[in-house]
Order: sequence, then C-alpha cells, then structure tokens
Amino acid sequence: MRADYSRVRAATELLVAGLPGEDLVVQSMPDASPAKWHLAHTTWFFETFVLGPAQADYRPFHPAFASLYNSYYESVGPQFARPRRGLLSRPTLAEVAQYRAHVDAAMAALLARGGPPWLGERVRLGLEHEQQHQELILMDLAHLFAQNPLQPALRADAAAPSSREAPPLRWCPGPTGVREVGHAGDGFHFDNEGPRHQTLLRPYAFASRCTTNGEYAEFVADGGYRRSALWLSDGWALAQAEGWTAPLYWYMSEGTAYEMTLGGPRPLDPHAPVVHVSHYEADAFARWAGARLPTEFEWEAMAEGVAVAGNFVESGRLHPTAADPPPPGRAAPTQLFGDVWEWTASAYLPYPGYRPPEGALGEYNGKFMSNQMVLRGGSCASPRDHLRASYRNFFPPRARWPFTGIRLTKDA
Amino acid sequence: MRADYSRVRAATELLVAGLPGEDLVVQSMPDASPAKWHLAHTTWFFETFVLGPAQADYRPFHPAFASLYNSYYESVGPQFARPRRGLLSRPTLAEVAQYRAHVDAAMAALLARGGPPWLGERVRLGLEHEQQHQELILMDLAHLFAQNPLQPALRADAAAPSSREAPPLRWCPGPTGVREVGHAGDGFHFDNEGPRHQTLLRPYAFASRCTTNGEYAEFVADGGYRRSALWLSDGWALAQAEGWTAPLYWYMSEGTAYEMTLGGPRPLDPHAPVVHVSHYEADAFARWAGARLPTEFEWEAMAEGVAVAGNFVESGRLHPTAADPPPPGRAAPTQLFGDVWEWTASAYLPYPGYRPPEGALGEYNGKFMSNQMVLRGGSCASPRDHLRASYRNFFPPRARWPFTGIRLTKDA
Amino acid sequence: MRADYSRVRAATELLVAGLPGEDLVVQSMPDASPAKWHLAHTTWFFETFVLGPAQADYRPFHPAFASLYNSYYESVGPQFARPRRGLLSRPTLAEVAQYRAHVDAAMAALLARGGPPWLGERVRLGLEHEQQHQELILMDLAHLFAQNPLQPALRADAAAPSSREAPPLRWCPGPTGVREVGHAGDGFHFDNEGPRHQTLLRPYAFASRCTTNGEYAEFVADGGYRRSALWLSDGWALAQAEGWTAPLYWYMSEGTAYEMTLGGPRPLDPHAPVVHVSHYEADAFARWAGARLPTEFEWEAMAEGVAVAGNFVESGRLHPTAADPPPPGRAAPTQLFGDVWEWTASAYLPYPGYRPPEGALGEYNGKFMSNQMVLRGGSCASPRDHLRASYRNFFPPRARWPFTGIRLTKDA
Amino acid sequence: MRADYSRVRAATELLVAGLPGEDLVVQSMPDASPAKWHLAHTTWFFETFVLGPAQADYRPFHPAFASLYNSYYESVGPQFARPRRGLLSRPTLAEVAQYRAHVDAAMAALLARGGPPWLGERVRLGLEHEQQHQELILMDLAHLFAQNPLQPALRADAAAPSSREAPPLRWCPGPTGVREVGHAGDGFHFDNEGPRHQTLLRPYAFASRCTTNGEYAEFVADGGYRRSALWLSDGWALAQAEGWTAPLYWYMSEGTAYEMTLGGPRPLDPHAPVVHVSHYEADAFARWAGARLPTEFEWEAMAEGVAVAGNFVESGRLHPTAADPPPPGRAAPTQLFGDVWEWTASAYLPYPGYRPPEGALGEYNGKFMSNQMVLRGGSCASPRDHLRASYRNFFPPRARWPFTGIRLTKDA
Ligand SMILES: [Fe+3]
Ligand SMILES: [Fe+3]
Ligand SMILES: [Fe+3]
Ligand SMILES: [Fe+3]
Repeated sequence: MRADYSRVRAATELLVAGLPGEDLVVQSMPDASPAKWHLAHTTWFFETFVLGPAQADYRPFHPAFASLYNSYYESVGPQFARPRRGLLSRPTLAEVAQYRAHVDAAMAALLARGGPPWLGERVRLGLEHEQQHQELILMDLAHLFAQNPLQPALRADAAAPSSREAPPLRWCPGPTGVREVGHAGDGFHFDNEGPRHQTLLRPYAFASRCTTNGEYAEFVADGGYRRSALWLSDGWALAQAEGWTAPLYWYMSEGTAYEMTLGGPRPLDPHAPVVHVSHYEADAFARWAGARLPTEFEWEAMAEGVAVAGNFVESGRLHPTAADPPPPGRAAPTQLFGDVWEWTASAYLPYPGYRPPEGALGEYNGKFMSNQMVLRGGSCASPRDHLRASYRNFFPPRARWPFTGIRLTKDA
Repeated sequence: MRADYSRVRAATELLVAGLPGEDLVVQSMPDASPAKWHLAHTTWFFETFVLGPAQADYRPFHPAFASLYNSYYESVGPQFARPRRGLLSRPTLAEVAQYRAHVDAAMAALLARGGPPWLGERVRLGLEHEQQHQELILMDLAHLFAQNPLQPALRADAAAPSSREAPPLRWCPGPTGVREVGHAGDGFHFDNEGPRHQTLLRPYAFASRCTTNGEYAEFVADGGYRRSALWLSDGWALAQAEGWTAPLYWYMSEGTAYEMTLGGPRPLDPHAPVVHVSHYEADAFARWAGARLPTEFEWEAMAEGVAVAGNFVESGRLHPTAADPPPPGRAAPTQLFGDVWEWTASAYLPYPGYRPPEGALGEYNGKFMSNQMVLRGGSCASPRDHLRASYRNFFPPRARWPFTGIRLTKDA
Repeated sequence: MRADYSRVRAATELLVAGLPGEDLVVQSMPDASPAKWHLAHTTWFFETFVLGPAQADYRPFHPAFASLYNSYYESVGPQFARPRRGLLSRPTLAEVAQYRAHVDAAMAALLARGGPPWLGERVRLGLEHEQQHQELILMDLAHLFAQNPLQPALRADAAAPSSREAPPLRWCPGPTGVREVGHAGDGFHFDNEGPRHQTLLRPYAFASRCTTNGEYAEFVADGGYRRSALWLSDGWALAQAEGWTAPLYWYMSEGTAYEMTLGGPRPLDPHAPVVHVSHYEADAFARWAGARLPTEFEWEAMAEGVAVAGNFVESGRLHPTAADPPPPGRAAPTQLFGDVWEWTASAYLPYPGYRPPEGALGEYNGKFMSNQMVLRGGSCASPRDHLRASYRNFFPPRARWPFTGIRLTKDA
Repeated sequence: MRADYSRVRAATELLVAGLPGEDLVVQSMPDASPAKWHLAHTTWFFETFVLGPAQADYRPFHPAFASLYNSYYESVGPQFARPRRGLLSRPTLAEVAQYRAHVDAAMAALLARGGPPWLGERVRLGLEHEQQHQELILMDLAHLFAQNPLQPALRADAAAPSSREAPPLRWCPGPTGVREVGHAGDGFHFDNEGPRHQTLLRPYAFASRCTTNGEYAEFVADGGYRRSALWLSDGWALAQAEGWTAPLYWYMSEGTAYEMTLGGPRPLDPHAPVVHVSHYEADAFARWAGARLPTEFEWEAMAEGVAVAGNFVESGRLHPTAADPPPPGRAAPTQLFGDVWEWTASAYLPYPGYRPPEGALGEYNGKFMSNQMVLRGGSCASPRDHLRASYRNFFPPRARWPFTGIRLTKDA
C-alpha cells in the first residue's frame, strides 16, 4: 500500500511536470478545473477521509482548504463554488506542492505505524480517486489548450501520426439470456458497480472495434449534422444552438481536416477511433449507421473475462489509435479497454438493491444518478490498473471534452 | 369512429367553455402553451396527418398555420418558436374556432365517405393526441392561474374540500421473476409502449396507495428541503437555486397551509395525494421514508389486469382525492390509475427492439428518449379511456406543473 | 377640467376600440405592456394620486390593484413584476372596463363637488400621464403585431401609401450665445422641464426636416451596418449581437423593401421619415452623413415659439409621412413636432437646480435620469396637445420600438 | 523621450515584480484582465502604432499577437474575445517578458536613430496608455484578491493603518459665469479633453475634501441601502439584484468593519475617503446628505491652476488616506488629485466640436461616449505625472472596482 501510494501520487505530478505554471492555474469552463485544483483536491481527499478520521491529533495544513478543495461533499461542509475555481491564484503552485508534501509525509507515517481497520480500504479509495483525477487533468488541459489560438501541446510526442490501419468492422455475437452483471469478487470496486445481479440479455451483435474517424467523417459528409431525423430532440437543439458540425476538436485548415490533441494539432487519422463526441452524436451516428449503442450490460457481458489491455495513459500516446487486428479464429471484439470511453444506451441509475455507503463518502457516486449516461471501457488517458469490466463511468449526454467514442451494436 | 371523433373534439372545447378569452391567450412559461394554441395545434394534427395525406384536393384552412401550429415535427417543416406561442394574439379565438369547425367538417366528410386503409388508425392517433392535449390544457391553466395574485379558478366546484380519509399505508408484494411487459393485444397504444418483451423482477413491496399531503408534510417539517443528503445532486442544486420549500402550489397564509388548485385556493387536505412534485422531490421523499420509487416495470406488473378506474377528468374534480379503502382480503394496491401520475425510477428509454414509425410521426415519441423519467398511471386531469397499464408518460425530472405524485416501493 | 377628463379618458379607449380582446392581453417583451395593463394602470393613477388623497372615504375598486397596477412607485408600495404583466389574464377586459367606469364615476363626482386646492393640477398630471400611455399603447401594439407572422394591422387605413415627396434637405442656422431654455410660463409641464435656465449655444446648422427612409437606405446600402468605425462601441456590440441590418421593422420580400406599420406591411416610402431606429443607429447615420445629432438645447432653441403642428395621433395616420414643403423665404425647419421623436445628443440629466416633487410623484421622472438619452418633438402617435417645445422624452439608447427618428445638425 | 520610455515601461513591470506568476494569469471577471494581458497589450500598442508604421521592415514578435492583444481596435483587425483573456495560459509570462524585451529593443533603436515627425507624439501616447494600464493592473489585482478567501495582499505594507484624521468638511465657493474648460496649452492631453470651450457655471459650493468612510458609514447605518427614494432607478434595481449593502470591499467580521485592500484586509478607517463605490451609490449618498455630485466643469473649475499633488501610486500606499488639513486662510478644496477618482454628475459625451483623430487611434476614446459617467482627479493607483485638471476618466455608473469615491457639491 505504501508503494502504491507513492506510485499513484507521483504519477499525478508527473502528468504536469515540465508544464509552465500558467497552464495549471486556468479554468477553461465551469465543467473543468485547473490542474492546480486537482493537485490540491486529491490531497484534501486524503486529509479529509483518511488523516482526519484516523489520527486524533492531525493538524490540517491550512484551515481554509477544507472548503477551498471540497468538490461536492455537502456533508463535509461548504464548498468553494465550482465555476470559480479558476479565480484562486492563491494558494500558489508552490504552496500546493507543500500541501502535497505535508499530506504525503503524514500518510507515510500513518501507513508505517498502521491505523484503524478501515485504513487500507480507504487509502485504496483515495488512490482510485486520484487516478480519476489524473484523467480529469488530461481532459481539462486538452480543453484549455483547444481554446488557445497558439494551439499548445502537453507533450510534443503525444498523438504522433501513425500508419496503423484499422481492421474492417465485424459483428461479434453477444451472450444471451439471464446473466450476472456488476462487480464480483473481493477486488476494489466503486459502490456503483454493485450489487451484482441478474439481467436479461437479448441476442445482439457487437462491433469488433470502435468507430473510426473515417467512418464518422462519412456521417459528417452525408449531412449527419444537418438531418434532424437522426437526432434525439435535446441533442438536435443543443447542436443547433452551439453550431456543431463535427466532433469537438475537429477543424479544417486549407482544405485539410485536423484535430487538436494533447500533442497539438494533428491531421485527422481516418483509422483512429473518433473521440470527443457527445452521447447525442454517438446516438445519431449509430442511427445513421443502422445500428444502435449497446446497453451497459451488453458491453459488460462482452468484456467479462477479457484482460485489461490496450492504449492507456501509460503508453504516453494520450490519444486513441487504430485498433489491433482481430484475434484469429472467433469473432471477439478488440479495443474494449483504453483508447476511448464508449457511450452506452444506459442511463446512469442505481443497480437493484444499491445503497450508497454511510457518511460523506455516500456522496461519491450515488447522488449523481440522474441525467447522465453510462460509459464503459476506459480511455487513452486512463491508468490501466484503474479499469475493469464492471467499471461505470458517467457523464451528461452533452459532454464532449472527455475522451469519449462510439461502439456500435445491433439487434441480432 | 365518427362518434369518437365528435366526442373527443367536443370534450376539448368543453374544458375551456365559459372561461373568459383572456385565459386562453396567455403563455405562463416556455414549457406551457396557451389554451388557444392547444385548440389549434390539435386541429393542425388532423389537417397535417389525416386530411392532407388522405385527400389530394384538401385546402388547408390557412397557409401560415402549417408552421404556426407545428409543435416539434422537424420533418414537416419549420416551427414557430415554442417560447413565443404566447405572442400570437392572432389568430383570434374566433378564428381558431373557425379553424376547428373547418377541419371538423372536412373530417366528418372524410369519415363518412371513407379513405385510405390507414385512416382509422391515424384518426385514432389524432384523438389520443388530442386527449393528451386536454390534460396539457388543464396543467397549463393551473400554472397560469397560480401566477396570478387574484388566484382565479377554472371551476368553482373543482377540488372541493372532502372529508374522505386516506386508508393506512400497507405494503403489497409484487410478482417476481421473468415477466412480460409492454403493450399486448390489438388495442391502440403508442409506439413507445412496445415491443412487448421480457424483464426480470426482483422481490419488492409496493405501497398500497399514493403518498398523501399529510405524509409529505412530515417530510417538509423534518427538514426535507434543507437536508442535502436526501437529494440527488441535480435536484438539490435546482431546489436551492429556485428556493423550493414545498410542492409547487403549496403556500402558507396566516398560519394555515393551502394549495392552489383548479378550484382556486384550498386548505391543504392531508388525506389527498401530494401533487405537483418533481422527480427530485419524489426521490428525496422516498429516501427520507426509507423506501424508493418503483421501476416502471414494477409498476406495470402491479397494474396488469387491473381495471382502469379512479379519479379522472370525467369526475370534474380536477384534483386528486383520498384513496379508496383497500379491497378486503388480499393486499392489492389502489389508486393506480387517476389522481396523480406516479414518478418511477426508470429513465425514459426505448424498449429492446423499439423502432419509431416511418415518417414524421416517428418524431411523436422516439426523439424524446433522453433526460426524462417515466411516469405511470394517469391523473385527475386525464381522460379515463386514454389510459392503460402499459402507458408511458414522461417528463424531465425537474417538472412540477403536471399532476405528478409519489408511489413508494421497497425491496422485499 | 371635467370635459378634459372625459375627452382624454375616452381617447384612450378609442385607441383599442374594435380590436379583438386577444390583442390587449399579450406582452410582447419586458419593455412593453399589454394594452389591458395600460388601461388599468392609468386608472390606478387617478385612484392612487387623486381619489385616495382627496376623499377620505374612497373605497378602492379592488384591494389587489394597488400592487397589480403600480408601475414603479416604490414609495406607494410593492409592484407586480413588470416582465410578468402579460401573465395577468385576470382581471379580464370586462373587469378593467368596470374599473375604469368606477373610477370615472368617482372622478366625475369629485370634480363636480370640488376638492382640495391641488386637485386641478393633480388631475391635469393624471391626464398628461394618460396621454403618455396612449402613445405607449400604440408603440406596444406595433411591437406585438410585428412579432406575428400574420402581420395584423391596428387599422386598415393607417400608414396608407402616399405620393407626397420630401423637400430637399436644407441647413437652417440656429441661434447662438447665452439662451434661456426649459419651460417658461404657467402652463402645464413636467418637473423635468425646469428650472428654466441659461445655456450657451455655439453656431450650428439644423436640418430643415427629418431624415427620410430614402436617405437612410443609402446608409444601409453603403455598408452602414457593417462599418464599425461609424458606431459607438456599445451600439456596435448590440447591433452585432442582435444581427441588426436595418431599422426595427424593415424587411425584404421578393426584392422589395417593406416596413411593418400599424396599418400592416407597407412598401417602404423613401420620402417618409425613417422611424424605429435606436440612438445608436441615429448617431451612426449622422456620422456617416458628416453631421451629428443636435443637443436638446439646440433643438429647443429652434422650436421655441413654433406652433405645435404636424402629424399627430389625431390624424389617424399612425405613421410618419413626408415633411411639408418649407415655408417660403427664410430657412426654418419643419416637422419639429409630430411624425417621429428626434434623438438628441444629450443624456437625460437634471437641469441645474432641479428637484423632484415631494412624495411618491417625485418618482415620476427624476429617478430615471441615468443611462437614457433625450428625445424631442413628439410623434405620429402623440396627442398634439400633449406636446411643447420644452418637452423632454427619454429612452435608453438601445430603444427602437418607440416612434424614433433622426434630425441632423452640423457645427456652423 | 528615451528616458521616459524606459521609466514608464519599467514602472509597469515593477508593479507586479515579486508576485507569484499565478496572480498574473487569472481574469476575475469580464471587465478585468489578467496582469499578463496588460503587460502584453501595452507592448502590442507600441508594436502596432509606433514600430509598424515607423519602420517598414519591422517584424512583429509573433503573428498571432496582432489579434491576441488587440483590445478593441476594430479597424486594426479582429480581437480575441475580452471575457476569454483569462483562458490564455500561453504565451507564458516568460514569453511575454521576451515580447516586452523585443519591443523595447526595437523602440530603443528607433528612438536612437529617430523616425517620422509624428514619432514623439505617438510614443508619448503609448506611454500615457501604459500608465492607464498601470492603474488597471492594480484595480484588476485588487478585484482578483478580493475573490479569494485567503485574502492575499499585493504588498504587506500597502494601506497601512493610519492615525491621520480627516479635517471637518467645509464648503468652498466655486467660480461662476462663463468659463473656459477643456485642455489648454501644448502639453500632452487625450483627444477627449478638447476642444477647449466656454461653459456656464452657476453658483455652487464644493466640498473641501472627499467623503470619508465614517460619513459613508452613517449613510449605511441610516438605511441608505434600503431606502429606494434615495436612488436612481437603475441603481436601485442593480443594488437589489446584487444584494449591495456597502461599498464593494467592505465586510464585517466578528462585529468589526473591514475592507479588503491591496495590503490585505484592514479595519475600516473612518477618516479615509470611501472608495469602490459606484456612481449609483455616490449619487444616493449625495442625495441623502442633502447635496449632489459636481458636474465635470464645476470640478475642473475648482482644479484649474491647482498643483497635481496628493496620494498617488508613487507613495506606495495604494489606498486612499485622510485628507490633508486645509490651507490656512481661504476656503479651497484639498484632495482634488489622487486618493480616489471622483464621480461627477456629467455623462461622458463629446465636447462641442470634438472630432476623434483619423485612423485606428480614433477608436481610443471617442467610441465610448455612451452610457458612461465622467470621473475626475486621479487615484492612489494613478501615476502622478499622468494626471491634470482637464483629465476625463470614465466608467459605466455601475462600476465599483476602480478606485472611485465621492466629492459633494451644493447649489450656492
Ligand atoms: Fe474528486
Ligand atoms: Fe401535440
Ligand atoms: Fe405610468
Ligand atoms: Fe489599452
């Protein structure tokens, strides 16, 4: 656990190492947060949910941080307003670094001497939480850079052009009948992944890989953004109001299609998975393609027992890339994990019998089960060991700035 | 069919007969429409989807109405902007009456001489559509009157004080296992009620009646609107932003609790079902009560085979009233139909294998399957013969102006 | 005074006589009010400021009207929110007519038996107030009708096409040096027209008539709405945000330029004064024309001693028309009164030594002396006997729905 | 000129020297800009208006800066949207420093070898422009710090508590009759200060010093923020909507009144001038005090011939302080320059005969002559040699974040 703690905390800092401090201070929209805030909030999490409860004489680093870095835990106390996080020029980055060091030292001491019985489980939760924020840091930086006419890159070698070709799309039959879904076993999982329960699957065929930029470009060229009949009503209204004509970071320059990436502007790779589409776009594309999005349980059934392998944050690529060739022999989908989070047709709702944990941590997942859709699989910005087949990510259907993509499915 | 046509059309007009014209012109919020608009739009529906297609030489009553009274059918053409419907002082009520008469005459002639094979089914759809707008007229008038310090009534005898007492709440066991849900048989139903399909039900207990004002008042008194831990995050944010402290039409006057009704202000009846609560409030109340909302299939399983009886628009009460005493003997829920629409825990999503109809009428239901929750049962403002066990009503979780109430459920 | 009272009150009602009630109920924007509201508010003015103070036993017609029809008098009490005036379907038009009759009867009795010394002056204020609202009724109806695709007319014969030609523009020299301005004499005037005081005029030349549609069309054709250099910064921002390309009610149809008028759509008359332009447009036009707008005192100096004659509401035309030929001999401007209110270069500020009246009527004019510009002269919708050379009308520079036009001036 | 250039440019940098970079990146509201933006924009001014026109082969530092750092010059080209300036994490502070160095080197070379005849005048304009932005940097930082619960200070010794007492208020008679106002002589002045022209002054009495916190606190205690009768209508509406109860940076803590300053939180000094009030508050206070605000010409007449002395940015205090004792003998006002900008009763409008300069610099002042009020005198954040008696500052009446205060005046 001590090694895990050090490793995960260091990984967060490594993401932004070498960036000019200016990039870590700015909030590009109310949904995003400055990287500096993420660095502090993840630290606050350990202070609030581990050090404070475990250690009677723990002295918080700064009394104001209880509120400044509380994201949304009403039962912990007031929260500095989310859309105003970017106004906090202070504490400085140096002070946030001191905050991290202070908490890391206290955590090291606590882990060395041991603590209450819940300590291990709670620290693990803190580390999984920090991994979630690692991905948020990357999403939020990508959004920030995309606002800037200078088109900065996080890393010059990210999203490097590739000559990989996407394999042809095939349809893989899914399992049917009554199936168990939800997390099984003793490993770490979030409360929202359980209870494990039965569900009923009807015959379906699952796309062998994610939808590519090339496929999505056909939808665009075929008037996909101009044909209301393809869209959910809310999606059409939003697309009109905001003038959508392509995924969030696509743009044309002198007749060539580009997309902004964490490596800066890149010519659009037709073989790479389309990324930064809303649920509305994913749904419209699927309708245009004569298919649909999978339910979260159809997805989970395909992923059960599949090793978590693919293009994750560890590759340093920080952008989706063309799928591997399919395994020889049977029709099994690839690219389930990594590259892009895959929008499902399932609203984010509690599983039967779900109860949030007691106390403030009950606010972690449960209270967001409204107006959101489930995504599965993980992305090129997710840590590999953070993912599993039962993992439920969620965003409102309008969200485009996460690394979101499309997996088609059909009734069989 | 001709009799049905006359009956339903007349019922619409009867709803507003005797009201001063002023009440029919005003739009009280973007979600509501003037009654005059409803009168015209339901007529447009027959013109657009029956008379035009069935009769090559049909002359529309007025060329501008195609757009003025198109609600949301993008494939039919442009729509006069919904939030601006209240700006249309013209056409006048008299002209709208002429419009109705013109279309009614053409419909009478068409029904008399017969038409294409789809005629009967399409007319039936138009009548069911008109019945939906009958309820909307009542909802929208109630909202309009509630904005007015003069507290007008639609009918002096509506929502008359009652001495009925609600029976004690009991818990009725629901059926379990794999069940068929969705519309069965040949009768009329909307596309979103099918296909009929199997679902898996876990053991549950269903409240014997709807939640009463008295029960809800306990929640209010217990700080229900001040305790964030009871609320979904989106609901809490909305309740704070809009300063909710009670259901939409409750208010205090000189120490007494009242609610605005279509009969004007009435002292709050503790035995009547609570009405005009959002999904967020229903969900928070259920959590406070140690229960939850039923899924739409749990609800449907309880209602299957139950006769559609209760307090509907035909009673003229136009307000929910205390539930009937339970049937002797077995534990069966009452008040399933009528009184209040019952919020479920189910997002409004397509059933497995659902496909919207071809053409513009495919926009009727399908494109709204996003960001809404399913309600079941019908209300005191619904026509009785418009309802059935498989009927799926839907509203965004923030909606309070429909006749919405609460049915509790528990895991068994 | 009794005759004046009857005449003015009847004139208000005559404006809307024959209109369908629907037109009198709707509020087309927050700045406008329903005609029904104007009918009641002008009545409230007599009740509040004459009957109540003059008659100890006066019983208000309805207790709720004190607030419902209070426009902006904070010291009288709370006000029903202005942008929500259109939600008041009740009181009905019939009830408002009763309200008017009730107050008229009480006023008749009071005027017959006499009252306190201030009675005459206060009644006169009430009548001038009512005349202001007569013009507001016409402005607000014109705005309402312009929102409607059916393009209704207030009167079929309003704004009838005319073959009058505007005389060529000439420049009339203005008086210079120290001059007295502000109201003089014993006649009625508003508080904001005084105190009479000295001002210093520099040599200037005043356009002999108002700017015509033809002249304004040249500005439009010369890119007037696309050249930022011609505009004040706030005006440019607003014009871009709202997509202005011409005066408020101009539009093109099949290659012909039209404008919406109170007589319905009319081909644009190049000889008639341009109307429904904001201060920003008037200012930009003047800059384009190598001229400027006059100060309010330059305007007043030209109008002093000029008879109040022109195209007023009494003509029934309800739209500006081409100026009369100039008087033979000396260079004197025409069209000073009537046709269009003329934007000046003067901010609406208090005259030296100005003090608002004591009491609630001190709120009539004084508190609006901020963020507004002065207009002079009166329009085709103003009653003739309501106007005079010292009259100061005022609107925010963005306002376009009054009958506003342009008078050019130059340094001499 | 070369020395001036170096001195002014260095003064800008000195303002933020020692601040953590984080403070220079953030934009706290749409009206404010990040200090980094100010540093670059003032440099862009020299590049655009001096180096480019003077030197045919001048190579701009970066092609994107033409748009990124254009504030509002439409005729120069597009402008990066003002409310989004805070999104520009790049260019970094280091790059902006390079930009400044690049332009400073080019300017030094140009000034050494000489240039076109307009060079001196244009460079002077650039330096005066930079001085304006020096004050903006301080205003914007004060606003930023005031948003932060940590209450940072720009300098620990700013706004140090003082034991100076304000002298009693006396009324100083002003000159009357026809007077010359506007800039006279050959010295630098902005276009909006001319042409010099005659105006007519009526007898008035001018407060001997600015209104103090102590005096303003009496207004607050007397219900100043709750009595609508004291306020202009727009001001009252804004104060209600935003919940104003005191000047912008006042707050109570444990029963003591404080204000946020550039030295951090300070107990309110009753002898120091009140600062950070809007025109609306200044006007309401004056009405409460039985006085009024001076016109800009009344102010200028009192200041003519008075030496520019007082509490300016050079003092390092960065906050207003109690006025000096009055000069012995005659009644002459003190504190005219420095401490706080003094709201006048004059709308910001062009002087008679005013014409903006040709070309893009015509946009500097002229296009803002709408919806703003004139302020006179300069503040504790203004450079002393930037001010003069004819200087016209201007802000919308709602502005509170500049160093704005109150000078009372009375009719004599
Ligand atoms: Fe978090
Ligand atoms: Fe409809
Ligand atoms: Fe009025
Ligand atoms: Fe500037």
